[in-house]
Amino acid sequence: MFLKGVRQLIGPLSQSPGRRPFPARPSLERPFQFSRQLASAGTLPQLTKDRYPYVKRGQYANLDHHHLKYFKDLLGPNRVITDTDECQGFNIDWIRSVRGYSQCVLKPKTTEEVSSILSFCNEHRLAVCPQGGNTSLVAGSVPVFDEVVLWTGLMNEIIHLDDTSGVLTCQAGCILENLENYVANHDLMIPLDLGAKGSCHIGGNVSTNAGGLRLLRYGNLHGSILGIEAVKADGEVIDCLNTLKKDNTGYHLKHLFIGSEGTLGVVTKVAISCPTKPKAINVALLGLNSFEEVLRTLKKAKRELGEILSSCELIDNLCMDLVLKHLKVPPPIGQHNFYMLIETHGSNLIHDEEKTNSFLENVMNEGLALDGTTTNEVSKMKSIWDLRERITEALLHDGYIFKYDISLPTESFYSLVEIMKERLGDRSHRVCGYGHLGDGNIHLSISVSEFTKEILDLIEPYVYEVTSKFKGSVSAEHGIGFRKPKYMHYSKSNEAIMLMKHIKNLMDPNGILNPYKVLPP
Amino acid sequence: MFLKGVRQLIGPLSQSPGRRPFPARPSLERPFQFSRQLASAGTLPQLTKDRYPYVKRGQYANLDHHHLKYFKDLLGPNRVITDTDECQGFNIDWIRSVRGYSQCVLKPKTTEEVSSILSFCNEHRLAVCPQGGNTSLVAGSVPVFDEVVLWTGLMNEIIHLDDTSGVLTCQAGCILENLENYVANHDLMIPLDLGAKGSCHIGGNVSTNAGGLRLLRYGNLHGSILGIEAVKADGEVIDCLNTLKKDNTGYHLKHLFIGSEGTLGVVTKVAISCPTKPKAINVALLGLNSFEEVLRTLKKAKRELGEILSSCELIDNLCMDLVLKHLKVPPPIGQHNFYMLIETHGSNLIHDEEKTNSFLENVMNEGLALDGTTTNEVSKMKSIWDLRERITEALLHDGYIFKYDISLPTESFYSLVEIMKERLGDRSHRVCGYGHLGDGNIHLSISVSEFTKEILDLIEPYVYEVTSKFKGSVSAEHGIGFRKPKYMHYSKSNEAIMLMKHIKNLMDPNGILNPYKVLPP
Repeated sequence: MFLKGVRQLIGPLSQSPGRRPFPARPSLERPFQFSRQLASAGTLPQLTKDRYPYVKRGQYANLDHHHLKYFKDLLGPNRVITDTDECQGFNIDWIRSVRGYSQCVLKPKTTEEVSSILSFCNEHRLAVCPQGGNTSLVAGSVPVFDEVVLWTGLMNEIIHLDDTSGVLTCQAGCILENLENYVANHDLMIPLDLGAKGSCHIGGNVSTNAGGLRLLRYGNLHGSILGIEAVKADGEVIDCLNTLKKDNTGYHLKHLFIGSEGTLGVVTKVAISCPTKPKAINVALLGLNSFEEVLRTLKKAKRELGEILSSCELIDNLCMDLVLKHLKVPPPIGQHNFYMLIETHGSNLIHDEEKTNSFLENVMNEGLALDGTTTNEVSKMKSIWDLRERITEALLHDGYIFKYDISLPTESFYSLVEIMKERLGDRSHRVCGYGHLGDGNIHLSISVSEFTKEILDLIEPYVYEVTSKFKGSVSAEHGIGFRKPKYMHYSKSNEAIMLMKHIKNLMDPNGILNPYKVLPP
Repeated sequence: MFLKGVRQLIGPLSQSPGRRPFPARPSLERPFQFSRQLASAGTLPQLTKDRYPYVKRGQYANLDHHHLKYFKDLLGPNRVITDTDECQGFNIDWIRSVRGYSQCVLKPKTTEEVSSILSFCNEHRLAVCPQGGNTSLVAGSVPVFDEVVLWTGLMNEIIHLDDTSGVLTCQAGCILENLENYVANHDLMIPLDLGAKGSCHIGGNVSTNAGGLRLLRYGNLHGSILGIEAVKADGEVIDCLNTLKKDNTGYHLKHLFIGSEGTLGVVTKVAISCPTKPKAINVALLGLNSFEEVLRTLKKAKRELGEILSSCELIDNLCMDLVLKHLKVPPPIGQHNFYMLIETHGSNLIHDEEKTNSFLENVMNEGLALDGTTTNEVSKMKSIWDLRERITEALLHDGYIFKYDISLPTESFYSLVEIMKERLGDRSHRVCGYGHLGDGNIHLSISVSEFTKEILDLIEPYVYEVTSKFKGSVSAEHGIGFRKPKYMHYSKSNEAIMLMKHIKNLMDPNGILNPYKVLPP
């Protein structure tokens, strides 16, 4: 069943100010109104239902005392939150762009409780919004209307670590950074690193197929998640929680739950394959003249650094100028059109240094890189990474920012920036690009003096049309959530979207799981 | 719809002799009656319908002139094979264990042709068996009855290689080894290596989620396949053929086609992420006393060799004795209870040798390994690999072999061998194990003087019950095919199997695609 009257939102994010509600490390790719909100903290964002009046509430039941009694009997009174103030933090996304008005937050501890909750909600047609660390950048983790919030934060048990195979099994509500610290004690690492790791839950990471900084090296979650236990909308537990690297016994169901953003089931447990923690890390920053040379250098880095290459990021000169100005630091190397940040992870410092130095010599000798610096000192590596990680923050000082998380085939990686620059001309301050070059994931940013409908119309849907023409993705790593369903067709065919809808209908026929998200109406 | 009357086969494979029909390199894990068949080549295997009379043909249409006319109009007469002799090679699996009686083999060249064929077959209720290189070890790639064979061998175009990002796009019928050779010219490799690579098609590899020798290092196909184009049973083309490493736009449909063995759709094109080809390869062979020491050595190899570890295989003493005797070669190291083959892939020979030597010194000094040898000479590496790769062949000289492709959590990896040894006692010649230790994938082999029902009943289903108890997989890399549906429940819950059936029903409501395979009735 697809709910009638549900439409998708359009336009830029809310301008309403507020405070960042979560104590997390800032996201690497902070969303664009962040500083405006910081600047005028305190006021609540407008209610989503008022801001997007054309999005209609589905025909779900209204929460009543009978429902609450069931939840309280199941979980006890302390794990059923109905206080309006307490619910507020679960109703607002962390970038304060949307606000639901759920009056009930449930805090299960076990899979059985999640199963009972969903079974009950399905039977009584109560809509449910699963929420982990609430660090979604596409408003995927908060209620749109009054959906019951199912918060996974108390499902935070580390179940098992096999430190020989490197397989970690845990509940879905474990915070990424806690897992990272836990496995680090065993010389292992989680194959996923995000700016939001201090808040985000592994279940949310899996549900949104989070990408991050080192996908180039450690691959995506479809590769590194070995097992999943999830609860379907009807409360049925799908146990695919094995810890095996090879298991060809029937359809590989776990992948349905990776990246479907909680609309097909609630992930309750995961098993993840953890690689060896690197003993040596090197970071280099290169200056280059043209994007063609950037591509040739990327190719060389992949060939020469091979197994130790862990990250390859691009920063263009407009981004670099801004971040240097903002951070008030002297340029680490001379001024160039493009900068590449190259990081290695390896098990032997001397070997890695030799490889890195030889690579740098080669790209300098061949005239690909004009300038460069390399280091393995922690503080200096951080300074270089800061140039990349703090671009979003620096951009906020450049006016109103339109920002897009786009994947493109490598050869077209920078074309989008050039095309948008051409299109906008004087009407923007700055059209610039930076991002995960090694993974083809660019963050296109456009700064203007202030938001206008006219400039928005110049940018959208054109930016998506161009992305589509290049066979790119309109959401590389942030997902679809509440914000992007209407853009999905730029990256997916009608047939694919129809199949997604059929699968949704099969697995959640009453549409109770995270409604108004992901699928276009 | 699930077809009534379809039951699953039981018992050991056909004893009927025959000739190996394909010119492939032998599979690394040759199935067990191989030598018997070789020994008495010429006779056809018994028809599957006669051998498994309880498996009933589904209520599909019988092929008639009207159907054939459509196919010939679509493909031309040369790409519609109806000659009985010519069809034979497509009716018999390569290990000659089963035989269908299809009277029609179709050889499409394009996705559009596949779409037209399936649309027509779906409309006319003609069952279809997709076939690639026909190297299945579970009788997954040949008709059970008279299914129309859709052979992908003419869909062998390499469409594009982006040698910067390393993404290769090609049609599904490309032979794995051809792709390997093609990308090797660009210093890239296919992240998959199988014994059958000279015959198997990439589309079949993807459809069966083939594993292979170096999954430990290069991950599984769910991680390395970036895009898939597939045709559903009704002829609809699902185009998820992008070449992007990050694409979070809706459900990740491509994974439905990875490992579903052609029962949900026919894969027509794939995009695969190719890593850099190693410049240096080292192989070491270690002798160890106990499985506990094997595990400690594996852990050390993962920690110390880190990013260069490409393979970690186990051979037990019973297997080693047999292979040495069979190959008539002197033991490369002294006699021990266990042997580990450790391989590294890296970009710098000197670095890799240093790491390998330091690792070997450490495991010797700590008394984990009692003995060892290492080499980077091609011929010597081959000799060491032969000890591992030719075990199956050697086993064939030890009587009738029961062989199982099992995954187990690492700590229980060898327990299955010990438990089966205990259970069988004197009734077997040899109960031994070898396999992909680094991936938890063991090949349990039991040799007896001759096949008897009594010994079979002692082994099965006990071997699967034990696997299930350890939370292992009853088919690690070979898949389910025609042979194993009845064992699937040892590794998958009823809820998971029901969900698989619902998905099958959703995507192929008439059940025309590769019937009698994968799902239990």
